[in-house]
Amino acid sequence: MIETSVEKAFLKKYPEQVVLVTTISKTGNPNIITLGWSMQTSFDPPMLAISIGHTRYSHFLLNEIPEFVLCFPSEQQKEAVIYCGTHSGRQTDKFKETGLVQVKSRYVKPPVISESVAAFECKIVSKLKTGDHTIFTGEILVAWISEKNLRRLYNFGGSFSSIPDIKT
Amino acid sequence: MIETSVEKAFLKKYPEQVVLVTTISKTGNPNIITLGWSMQTSFDPPMLAISIGHTRYSHFLLNEIPEFVLCFPSEQQKEAVIYCGTHSGRQTDKFKETGLVQVKSRYVKPPVISESVAAFECKIVSKLKTGDHTIFTGEILVAWISEKNLRRLYNFGGSFSSIPDIKT
Repeated sequence: MIETSVEKAFLKKYPEQVVLVTTISKTGNPNIITLGWSMQTSFDPPMLAISIGHTRYSHFLLNEIPEFVLCFPSEQQKEAVIYCGTHSGRQTDKFKETGLVQVKSRYVKPPVISESVAAFECKIVSKLKTGDHTIFTGEILVAWISEKNLRRLYNFGGSFSSIPDIKT
Repeated sequence: MIETSVEKAFLKKYPEQVVLVTTISKTGNPNIITLGWSMQTSFDPPMLAISIGHTRYSHFLLNEIPEFVLCFPSEQQKEAVIYCGTHSGRQTDKFKETGLVQVKSRYVKPPVISESVAAFECKIVSKLKTGDHTIFTGEILVAWISEKNLRRLYNFGGSFSSIPDIKT
């Protein structure tokens, strides 16, 4: 083992899971952010944790309406994942710009993204400031999957792809 | 999209990243746990978050000595990953049982695991209880990579494999 910079060591993390997280403004306008930093954090109750930079519009929205939907994007949503990871919802309507379609959530105000591999409606339980990000933890109220057999999208270090079946 | 159980929706999460986390007891005995639930959570300072069940021995140890090393296991460490995910360090010496080799860390007491793809020495900054787990956040003090070109191991839903080069 050799010592190296944190940045160089993190180049070894790919392929990285990627998720789309929807939020909503007080006035009812939904937003979407692409995140690499999310994890499960409880079985009972089922919970998810997401890490969002302080300057992000989604960070502002989560402090207004403490609800989100975490979606696993499919390989077909690659361009939308790139768009939502490189534009701010302060200036743009990301559903309109990406062509992603909203499905009304059952329990929360932010919408489910249609044609996601899977989606989880969450209400925020707690927040923790961590350096330049905040961890938001959410209890999962209900889960959704696509009727289609879709493949989840991964980040390969700036480029995105699904992962084919691999003999394990 | 169709509503389903949380368990069924999470079957869509694979392949899932997997990490090995080392901790140490007050008496200097190191332990290893296999985790699927970890994420980055700050660029400046660089930080990682890990989610550990309340009943785990590693949970106990992190409350004694608030330091850990998060390692990306290689495909060659597959059997060790399975062993460390299915045995408790209360009863077993996981380094001895798996044959994994310790490398002395630079800043923390828990060791780096030799032949990891990458490793991150962390001191705990904060804790957050989340259902049946605790999120521990750690500031990264130094990072390591292997001299060899190793492939990271992933969980394919109970079986483990690396991921070959994919044209993205």
